[in-house]
Amino acid sequence: MGARSLLLLSNSTLHNGKYLEWAKPEILDILTRKNVTRVLFVPFASFQHDEYTNTVKQALEPWGFQVEGIHSAPDPVQAVEKAESIFIGGGNTFLLLRTLYSNGLIGPIRKQVLENGVPYIGSSAGTNVATVSINTTNDMPIVYPPSFSALGLVPFNINPHYQDPDPNSKHMGETREKRINEYHEIESSPPVLGLREGSLLLVEGNSALLKGHFKARLFARGKEPTEYEVGSDLGFLL
Amino acid sequence: MGARSLLLLSNSTLHNGKYLEWAKPEILDILTRKNVTRVLFVPFASFQHDEYTNTVKQALEPWGFQVEGIHSAPDPVQAVEKAESIFIGGGNTFLLLRTLYSNGLIGPIRKQVLENGVPYIGSSAGTNVATVSINTTNDMPIVYPPSFSALGLVPFNINPHYQDPDPNSKHMGETREKRINEYHEIESSPPVLGLREGSLLLVEGNSALLKGHFKARLFARGKEPTEYEVGSDLGFLL
Repeated sequence: MGARSLLLLSNSTLHNGKYLEWAKPEILDILTRKNVTRVLFVPFASFQHDEYTNTVKQALEPWGFQVEGIHSAPDPVQAVEKAESIFIGGGNTFLLLRTLYSNGLIGPIRKQVLENGVPYIGSSAGTNVATVSINTTNDMPIVYPPSFSALGLVPFNINPHYQDPDPNSKHMGETREKRINEYHEIESSPPVLGLREGSLLLVEGNSALLKGHFKARLFARGKEPTEYEVGSDLGFLL
Repeated sequence: MGARSLLLLSNSTLHNGKYLEWAKPEILDILTRKNVTRVLFVPFASFQHDEYTNTVKQALEPWGFQVEGIHSAPDPVQAVEKAESIFIGGGNTFLLLRTLYSNGLIGPIRKQVLENGVPYIGSSAGTNVATVSINTTNDMPIVYPPSFSALGLVPFNINPHYQDPDPNSKHMGETREKRINEYHEIESSPPVLGLREGSLLLVEGNSALLKGHFKARLFARGKEPTEYEVGSDLGFLL
């Protein structure tokens, strides 16, 4: 497991920002350290595979990377097996996970990332599917996947786009914290890291560094939530 | 189908209000018109069945109704078959639907409501499960139900707690409208009624009256969303 190299972004785009721009230094770093020039992009969190892949090309090609959309590959499993790096973008987590299953990609991606050390970048839904399960996604369940179990590249869950309660809100929907606490009423539910927009987790071997703009909130069954500052190593979760 | 009598609430409690208070006139009306004195309450959207049932008792007993929690019944299917009225409360929609399935209640509730005309009251998650499917719930998928198909008491879906986009928000999560539009990229997806908090739909026979405090927003695949004022009859959806 020591070989894994993951960059898990809460989100792809900041308010008024360009696609992936806020995370550019981290993306360049994880890819260039492994001499990666090709990125296999998985657009399955969207229905518009070509359009989405073009967005990613426009962001990553000027930084020196070739981008291939996995939907264009004759054999998606083989595309994963040959990938130098894998990027799964955001969108709808249910649609993404269902399409990973229907293309038989769960095992091959796990193997490439955990055994062969191929760098994995995930954003939003792409971060959700990198964890134990999609039980803590914020998305609408527009399609029914065969399971909520995900890639399991880390042994905990993440809640991307984490939001603190708005004290002025009169809306009666559950806060994010309340939803995660409900999840933790379930026995053996794993810890959940609330990653605020503009934050990311860099997992390399047995370290899990919190980077980006904001601290993160860690929830664990039966415990009070804890805030971790940028720069914290959450390797104890691995 | 002419016999059905449904009260579908967006939510149970308004900001600073008491449980179910905002919908009291409608609840009294639908129950007393059918000479109902007993309410079978389904607390399965929560893990705390006793506590939740007590909340409902405290609201409904002073209004003259006896409340029984279905979890206390020796045989939940029989409890449904004998019910004078059924109320399914809010909480987590995934947990609720999974528990309805595991108790074998989908068919019996459908039969009681659609064939025998037993009044059905739903709130939030209880409104979601009354529709075609839970594909347009806002909840976190904390458990995996055997299907997203729901009771199908009406042939469309509802998005409860519907929220308009906040023009000042810098949060990059999808707006509610965007999420519903993504759902409508799926062929044969049914219309979705966005019910704002403080609004409800009264379905009787072939009429579906919008009542409560706010207009509702109707989404249908391939069409522009349409607003309907309080008092509108959405019976064309039935």
